[in-house]
Amino acid sequence: MGEFSFIQWIRQKQKRRKDVILGIGDDCAVIAISKDKLCLITTDMLVDGTHFDLKKCTAREVGRKAIACSISDVAAMGCQATVAVISICFPDRTTEKFAKELYKGMWSIADKYNIEIAGGDIISGRGPLCINVAMLGRNNGLRPISRSGARIGDMILVSGTLGGSILGKHLHFEPRQKEGIILNKNFKIHAMIDISDGLTADLNHILEESHVGAILHEDRIPISKAAITVSRKTGNTPLCHALSDGEDYELLIVLPKGQAKRVIESHLFVKGMIHCIGEIINGRGIQMKYTDGSTHHIKPQGYEHLKS
Amino acid sequence: MGEFSFIQWIRQKQKRRKDVILGIGDDCAVIAISKDKLCLITTDMLVDGTHFDLKKCTAREVGRKAIACSISDVAAMGCQATVAVISICFPDRTTEKFAKELYKGMWSIADKYNIEIAGGDIISGRGPLCINVAMLGRNNGLRPISRSGARIGDMILVSGTLGGSILGKHLHFEPRQKEGIILNKNFKIHAMIDISDGLTADLNHILEESHVGAILHEDRIPISKAAITVSRKTGNTPLCHALSDGEDYELLIVLPKGQAKRVIESHLFVKGMIHCIGEIINGRGIQMKYTDGSTHHIKPQGYEHLKS
Repeated sequence: MGEFSFIQWIRQKQKRRKDVILGIGDDCAVIAISKDKLCLITTDMLVDGTHFDLKKCTAREVGRKAIACSISDVAAMGCQATVAVISICFPDRTTEKFAKELYKGMWSIADKYNIEIAGGDIISGRGPLCINVAMLGRNNGLRPISRSGARIGDMILVSGTLGGSILGKHLHFEPRQKEGIILNKNFKIHAMIDISDGLTADLNHILEESHVGAILHEDRIPISKAAITVSRKTGNTPLCHALSDGEDYELLIVLPKGQAKRVIESHLFVKGMIHCIGEIINGRGIQMKYTDGSTHHIKPQGYEHLKS
Repeated sequence: MGEFSFIQWIRQKQKRRKDVILGIGDDCAVIAISKDKLCLITTDMLVDGTHFDLKKCTAREVGRKAIACSISDVAAMGCQATVAVISICFPDRTTEKFAKELYKGMWSIADKYNIEIAGGDIISGRGPLCINVAMLGRNNGLRPISRSGARIGDMILVSGTLGGSILGKHLHFEPRQKEGIILNKNFKIHAMIDISDGLTADLNHILEESHVGAILHEDRIPISKAAITVSRKTGNTPLCHALSDGEDYELLIVLPKGQAKRVIESHLFVKGMIHCIGEIINGRGIQMKYTDGSTHHIKPQGYEHLKS
């Protein structure tokens, strides 16, 4: 059983409440508080050895990342992150200095985005450092953008460049909070997700939720310098890294053609930091149009927990 | 550094948002969504070997407990638990059967209390099973009851009987959700908390937040049968277990004398399941009036993480 098939099993069994507008299966859950006020919530767990490696990074970087990942989830709904509650399991013999550095890392980004850490649970246990951030968001009168609205003929945009985040971006990325809200406010976005599992894996989440397929163009995938660097070590192609590496925390945006043109021509993203990589098509799954003119189905690849 | 002094350090450093009515330092954070609609949120992390022992209990019991603890936090504010998001780190080689049993345990109590598990994060990692529940609550027009409203002359009530929860109650307790809301709706409660750390430790949280002291009466502490049983093994007195064992998840209620009388005479709690154990007094800390007539300060004792 993989992570995603287990989540499908959970969704089928889960009883629903009327005030929960969006439940399991999106970047955030959305709860109706009153007629126009929605509450968004997302939860992210990070564990040493899986999401970061304390042999290679500082407590401050880990704290920053934990908050940044959750901001990115709210941004991917086109909404505003506001309040976080944090649970931390410190390994035995954690020093006070380390614990304080972790919080300083969290505040370094929480303060910048006007997010209050309003509560938490601090425990100790055997096992590695484990941090959970539950982040609330508000809709500011906007409709949260789900994964399920992609339509045939829509364009697929991606911000930034992709691949090789392991070389540093996974710790230092800036969540696309501002861009997510501006996109929601000023453009007609059909579906959006942040790239945490990997481009094809996250695109596939949109396709499955929207019951559509996609075609990507090999020569339009924005490959990062880090993807090229890391490809020299792994032997995989830079394209392969751009398609399947996780944790770039860029936005994957699905929207009508005219809207896509407007987004690209706007100055929301720095030049070269927004790319149209393909279209939504009838069918299922992802096809890749290669530069040699051939088109083949590709398998969504990215990080999946519980893979056997 | 202990857990509580670290939390004090965090509180001093934390920047505040205007819409966060209650931040760090209570059972839940409280966020104002609109004029009369409040959103409560609490987070609880449970780790194998600390909060449960998979050698001695089932996955279903663990799942139930994880949700029940968070309901108890919302109940202790006199409010209604509604929506949970769950993060789970499964140890490598977790079976599908185990993972499903864990969810069945969560649903066994979530469904009963009309709580939707609306999202989550499922990961795998080295280290023991780790579950985080972030629970949302609603105020239903009521004012959430904080820890900080205790006043000199108030009575201290406790529900149920205390001590020895390790023998089973910590897995099978029923969160005082119904009672919490009825107390908030029909009585004037000054402060409330659920007993998770231990009677004296949790009473001390109220005293510190309210800047008052308390006197308890030795002969009025409701000692559970489990406290007596467990005392035979530990060599500590049953009273000691009732005062310092954690995880009874009973309500500790501080309210004016007339209100206390009304609560006791109501049928909200089964006979013998609500006790007046002492009063709020001027000063700081907890005093115990022993049956021999003497009165001594006692040290708040209970479970504290990060204790060096």
